[in-house]
Amino acid sequence: MTAANEAASAADRELVLTRMIDAPREKLFRAWTEPDLLVQWFAPLPWTTSAVEVDLRPGGRSLFVMRDPDGKDYPNMGVYLEVVKNEKLVFTDAYTEGWQPSEKPFFTGIITFEDVGGKTRYTARARHWTVENRDMHEKMGFHEGWGQCADQLAALVAKI
Amino acid sequence: MTAANEAASAADRELVLTRMIDAPREKLFRAWTEPDLLVQWFAPLPWTTSAVEVDLRPGGRSLFVMRDPDGKDYPNMGVYLEVVKNEKLVFTDAYTEGWQPSEKPFFTGIITFEDVGGKTRYTARARHWTVENRDMHEKMGFHEGWGQCADQLAALVAKI
Repeated sequence: MTAANEAASAADRELVLTRMIDAPREKLFRAWTEPDLLVQWFAPLPWTTSAVEVDLRPGGRSLFVMRDPDGKDYPNMGVYLEVVKNEKLVFTDAYTEGWQPSEKPFFTGIITFEDVGGKTRYTARARHWTVENRDMHEKMGFHEGWGQCADQLAALVAKI
Repeated sequence: MTAANEAASAADRELVLTRMIDAPREKLFRAWTEPDLLVQWFAPLPWTTSAVEVDLRPGGRSLFVMRDPDGKDYPNMGVYLEVVKNEKLVFTDAYTEGWQPSEKPFFTGIITFEDVGGKTRYTARARHWTVENRDMHEKMGFHEGWGQCADQLAALVAKI
């Protein structure tokens, strides 16, 4: 496989959302890592986040329980892979806690916060192991859902 | 799924090798992380290790090129997930460098070094995402291959 083909293959399996947000990246990192802040923006309204667990280290457990408008809970369990304070968060559902392979690895999230003169370039990437899962994630409403959450996130960091 | 079922399911997807090795764990950790030592024991003879790259941090690249007796090279690329000096190494082929999902995730390796009065309890676990891959790995000769490598590793650390 050539380098160009590898790049194309990687792009085929990735979804990306980028925003400039008028807040310092320290606040965005807090909003992504402190449970009492996460529950305020993480699910696209009228969905809510009913529970959050954050063990912020490689292999540490990540749990987000999203609740639909009828009150049904959908747990999303995974682990953190890399944590660079105020700069980067990487997590995946390919493992449950303790490096136990999960039943159905779906994606890896890479969140980066870049300082641009006091504002922040916020980039959320979802990388999948297959093109099929990437396409499924897009049809599930990745751009609308993550876009709405980015709006909620921007509104929250404006007031903390 | 009950806790007991989860444990059974996890065991069904894991292969484990354990040895007591008469050397302090610091030497075993060195043998697992220093390229000039790795090439001396990592492949089961008459196979050899023709190249090694070790970027020892979460997300850092891991490359082991194994050479068969006819001189054909087989590269094994992955990333480190967790590094605890002298105690633990976790790596996987589910990613290539930079958290790029790989084409065919096969297993996660968890190597632990426990101090037992100056000797070391050495445990190598291979965890797979499917029972099929676990069984394939066993048929490929996991126990014989990793066992022979553990002998080669023990012989090396006895003289460094």
